[in-house]
Amino acid sequence: MKTDKDNSELMPNPANHVPLSPLSFIERAKDIYPERTSLIYGSRKYTWAQTYKRCTQLASALSHHGIQKGDVVSIIAANTPELFEAHFGVPMSGAVLNTINTRLDSDTIAYILEHAETKILITDTIFSPAVKEALILSNRQDILLIDIVDTQAEGEAQGTVKLGMMDYEGFLESSDPDYNWFLPNDEWQSLALNYTSGTSGRPKGVLYHHRGSYLMTMGTVLGWELSGHPVYLYTVPMFHCNGWGHAWTMAALAGTVVFCRHITAKAIFNSIADHGITHFGGAPVVLSMLVNATDEERQSFNHPVKVMTAGAPPPASILEGVQNLGFEVMQVYGLTETYGHVVQCAWKQEWDHLSPGEQASLKARQGVRFPMTEGLRVVCLETGKDVPQNGQAMGEIQIRGNTVMKGYLKNPDATAEAFEGGWFHSSDLAVVHADGYIEIKDRLKDIIISGGENISSVEVENTLYKHPAVAVAAVVAKQDDKWGEVPCAFLELKPDTACSEEEIIAFCREHLAGFKTPKSIIFDILPKTSTGKVQKFLLRERIKSIS
Amino acid sequence: MKTDKDNSELMPNPANHVPLSPLSFIERAKDIYPERTSLIYGSRKYTWAQTYKRCTQLASALSHHGIQKGDVVSIIAANTPELFEAHFGVPMSGAVLNTINTRLDSDTIAYILEHAETKILITDTIFSPAVKEALILSNRQDILLIDIVDTQAEGEAQGTVKLGMMDYEGFLESSDPDYNWFLPNDEWQSLALNYTSGTSGRPKGVLYHHRGSYLMTMGTVLGWELSGHPVYLYTVPMFHCNGWGHAWTMAALAGTVVFCRHITAKAIFNSIADHGITHFGGAPVVLSMLVNATDEERQSFNHPVKVMTAGAPPPASILEGVQNLGFEVMQVYGLTETYGHVVQCAWKQEWDHLSPGEQASLKARQGVRFPMTEGLRVVCLETGKDVPQNGQAMGEIQIRGNTVMKGYLKNPDATAEAFEGGWFHSSDLAVVHADGYIEIKDRLKDIIISGGENISSVEVENTLYKHPAVAVAAVVAKQDDKWGEVPCAFLELKPDTACSEEEIIAFCREHLAGFKTPKSIIFDILPKTSTGKVQKFLLRERIKSIS
Repeated sequence: MKTDKDNSELMPNPANHVPLSPLSFIERAKDIYPERTSLIYGSRKYTWAQTYKRCTQLASALSHHGIQKGDVVSIIAANTPELFEAHFGVPMSGAVLNTINTRLDSDTIAYILEHAETKILITDTIFSPAVKEALILSNRQDILLIDIVDTQAEGEAQGTVKLGMMDYEGFLESSDPDYNWFLPNDEWQSLALNYTSGTSGRPKGVLYHHRGSYLMTMGTVLGWELSGHPVYLYTVPMFHCNGWGHAWTMAALAGTVVFCRHITAKAIFNSIADHGITHFGGAPVVLSMLVNATDEERQSFNHPVKVMTAGAPPPASILEGVQNLGFEVMQVYGLTETYGHVVQCAWKQEWDHLSPGEQASLKARQGVRFPMTEGLRVVCLETGKDVPQNGQAMGEIQIRGNTVMKGYLKNPDATAEAFEGGWFHSSDLAVVHADGYIEIKDRLKDIIISGGENISSVEVENTLYKHPAVAVAAVVAKQDDKWGEVPCAFLELKPDTACSEEEIIAFCREHLAGFKTPKSIIFDILPKTSTGKVQKFLLRERIKSIS
Repeated sequence: MKTDKDNSELMPNPANHVPLSPLSFIERAKDIYPERTSLIYGSRKYTWAQTYKRCTQLASALSHHGIQKGDVVSIIAANTPELFEAHFGVPMSGAVLNTINTRLDSDTIAYILEHAETKILITDTIFSPAVKEALILSNRQDILLIDIVDTQAEGEAQGTVKLGMMDYEGFLESSDPDYNWFLPNDEWQSLALNYTSGTSGRPKGVLYHHRGSYLMTMGTVLGWELSGHPVYLYTVPMFHCNGWGHAWTMAALAGTVVFCRHITAKAIFNSIADHGITHFGGAPVVLSMLVNATDEERQSFNHPVKVMTAGAPPPASILEGVQNLGFEVMQVYGLTETYGHVVQCAWKQEWDHLSPGEQASLKARQGVRFPMTEGLRVVCLETGKDVPQNGQAMGEIQIRGNTVMKGYLKNPDATAEAFEGGWFHSSDLAVVHADGYIEIKDRLKDIIISGGENISSVEVENTLYKHPAVAVAAVVAKQDDKWGEVPCAFLELKPDTACSEEEIIAFCREHLAGFKTPKSIIFDILPKTSTGKVQKFLLRERIKSIS
C-alpha cells in the first residue's frame, strides 16, 4: 500500500466519516448554547434547548404516526416557529420536508399533494380554505392532517377552519420522551422537496439532499461573512428554497430568528429597533418598500444591518436608496434548483472610494460564485463555449456544485435536460464583465426579438425605473406583423403620481435605441409571485387577448 | 419512486456532485481576487494570481517528473512561500504532501523517507546537513531531490549544501504552461501524510483526505469567526498538522499570509505594525514570549488581533497576560490525528462582565466541539460511559467527525486501536464541567499514581506556574518504593530570578494536597519539541538515570 492509493485500505468508519447534514447544527446549538434565544415571534420566545426539544418532539410524533424514511411531510404555513421547527423535526424523522407556497391556488396545491405523495400535511389554519378545497380536488383524503392554530393571527382569520385530527401542539405532546433521532446514513438522502414557482406549466419538484444543505450553510457563512450570533429577521418566505437555507444557517451560528407574519416597512424598522436585527433577506420588492417608507414608518438605527437580496435583478436606484438608509446590501443570485443563492456580488475593497451611484451600479451585478459553488459559466448557446468577458456577449448561466439539486422528482426528462453536459442549465441569460462578474440580462424566454435584434427586457425595465413616477416596470414581447416582436411595457406608478404613455415613450427614446423603446404602455397594478417577481406570463396572456 | 427513497434514482452527476477539496479554494481566490496580496515573506510578495500560477507550475513539474496519484512528495522547509505552495501544488498533481518536522534528527528523517516511500524530496538548504545524513542512513538514493535556496536566509547558513538535481525555481520553470490539474475523483483520496511527534517509539504516519481538509477550513471559519480577508502571520510550523490547515483556510478567504523564518516576540510585534496582522496561532510558548517581551521588543497596536493557541494547556496567568496586551486569545485542542483543532473554548457573552482573572480561568479550559466536530465525549475508562459533568470525574477524550484521520499508514493495528468502538481515542484525560466545557487534566501516560491516588501532572504544573519565578514547569512520575510513584518537578526559571527547592516545595504545599506536592525539584533548561511541548519522555529517562 502506498498512501492508500486506491482509497481501499483505510475505509470510512463511524469515527472518521459522519454524513453531512444540517441536523448536526441544531444539536451543537443545544449542547453549547442551550440558554441563548433561538426564536422570537410576537409574545412567543424560545431558547435553543427548547427549540431542540420541540423539533425532537415533532420527529417523534411523525414517527409515531407512521412516517418512515423518504416519506413526504408537507406544510403550508406562514413564517412562524412551527415552520422553522419543521425544517429540523421533519428530517429528524427521516422524512422529506415539502414546504408549500402559501399563495398557491387550490388546484396547484392539489397537484403538489398528489405528485409529492404527501403522507402528513401540517396546515396553518389561516390557509385552510384553499387547503380544504385542494384536498377535495386531489382525492387525497387519506392524508393525515395537523392544524397550526396561531392565536397571534386570530384577528385576520376569515373562513379558517380546523381540518385535522389534532392541533400542532397536541401533536408534539403525543411524542415519546425517549425518542432518539438519527442522522441519515447517507448524506445524499433527500432532505427537502421544493416546487418551482411554475411560471409556465405545472411546477416541478426539486429535491435537496442533506449534504447540499450542510454545504449551503457553510458557504453562506463565508460568502455573507456571518460571525458571532446574528439576529435574523425572517422576511424571506420559508417555503421558497427553504428560506434560502437560513433556518439551518442560523442554527449553525446559534443566532436568533425573529418572525413576523406580515412583512411591511414598519414591521422591519420596528424589529430592528425592538430586537436589534443584524441580518435579513428579501426580494427587491422588500427593498423598494424600505426606500418608499413614510417618515412615520421609519426608525433610525445605528448598528450594522446586512441585507441579502435576490429573486430579481434590483435596479441600481433602489440599491442606492436602501444603502442611503444605512443598510449594507449584497445582491445574490440563484434558483430553486440551486438551494437558493450560489452567486454573490462580492464586494472589493478598491470600490470603497467610488461614488454611491457607481457603487450601486456595481452592486446591481449578480457577481461571482459563492464559496460552495464549484463552477459558474456563461455559455454561448450557439458555440457552447464560454462567452468573452466583455460585458456585451450574452450567454446562459450554467452552474456546477454540491448545492445543485439531486434532480426533479418523477421527471427524468426534465432532470436530464437540466443537467445536460454535466452542468446545471439556469435558463437565465447574462453577460460577463472584464473583472469576471456576471450580470443577468434576461430569462431565456423573456428575450424580445425585434427585427432580428435581441432586446433585453431587463435593460428596458432598468430605463423605465429611472423615471421618477415608475414604481414597478415589466416589459414583454408583443407580436408585430412588421418586426416579429416589439417591446410592450406594463407600469405600476408611485402613489400620487401621474404620467402619460407619450411621456414614458419620449423618456425611453432619450435613453434607449429606437428599436428598444416600448411601442405601447399599459398602466396597472402588476401581478406578482409571493417572492415579488412580476408574473410575466400573465402579462403575455393579457397582451395576446388585447391584440 | 417516492422522493428517491433509496437514493438510487437520482444519482450524483458532475453538475451536482463535486468532491470536496481545499484545492477549490485557491482557484476561487485566483478567479475573484487575482490582484489581492496572497503571500509576504521579507522582500518577496505575491498576488493570488501569481501564487496560483506557481502552485500549478509545481504540480506540472511534479507530474513531468513522474509523480502519479498517491505518490508521496516530502518537503522539509521553514515557513516560507515554497512550503505554502506545496500545500496546493503537491495535491494538484494528485500526490500526497508529507511535510517533515525541521527539527528531527537524521535517523527519524531516514525512517520517514523509507516508511512514506517518498518519491520526491524538496529540501530547504538550511536543513540539508540532517537531510544529507538521512539519505545515507535510509539507503534511499533513488529519491529525486529539489533544493529551496532562500537568499533571505543566507546569513544563517552553516554547513548547508545543495543536495539535488535542481533548485525549486528551476523546477517550477520546467513546468508545462498548458498543464491542467484536476480535483480528485474521490474526496476520500489522501491529501497529506503527517508523522506524529513520536513522544515514545517511532512516529506514526497520519493520513488526511481532501474532504477532511475542506471541512476543517469551513469549521475553522465558523468557530474562529473569520470574516473578510484576514492578514495571517504563520507562526505555527506548517509541518505540524499542515499548520493547523490555515494555508487552505486563508485561500478560502483570499487572505494574506505573512511568513517569517524566526518567531520571536520582536518579529511578531513588528509584523503587526508593518503588515497589520489580524490573526496568528501559536503554542503557549509563543504566548509566554509575548508576555515576557521587553519594552524595546514591544510595539503597540490598536486593531483587533486574534490568536489561536494550542499544543499544551496554557496556564491562566499566561492567558491573562497576553489578553492584557490586547490580544484576543482562543484556546483550542486537537491532535495530529484530528487535522489539528477540533475543540474550542467558545466564548459566551455572559462571561463579558467577569474579572480578567475569572475570564482567564474559563479560557484555560479546552471547551466544546468546533462546528465540524460531530462528536466529543469524555469517557470513563472503567465503565465505558460518559463521565458526569461535575468538573471532577476524569476520562479519556474521544472524538468523532469528518476531520478525523483516515488512519495510520501501514499500521492496521494502531489504526484499529485508535478507532475502537467507532470513536477516535485521544489518550488525553479530561474532566467535563457543569456547562459541558471540557478541561484537559493529563495525557493518559502522564498521570502519576501515588499510593493509589491519581495525580494530574497538569494540576501540579499549573500550581508551579503561579510561583513568580517559574517560566516553564514539567511534572513527571518518579519511582518510589513506598508510594509506587511520586511527582517530580523540572523547572526553568525566569531570567534574573533565583529560587530554592525548599521554597518551591513549601509553595506547593500551601496550594496542593500533600500527596500532590513534588518530592523533588530539578532546575534546568527543559527539552522541548518544535511546537513548544516539553518532551517529558526525556525527563522520565533522566529521572531513571538519576534514581
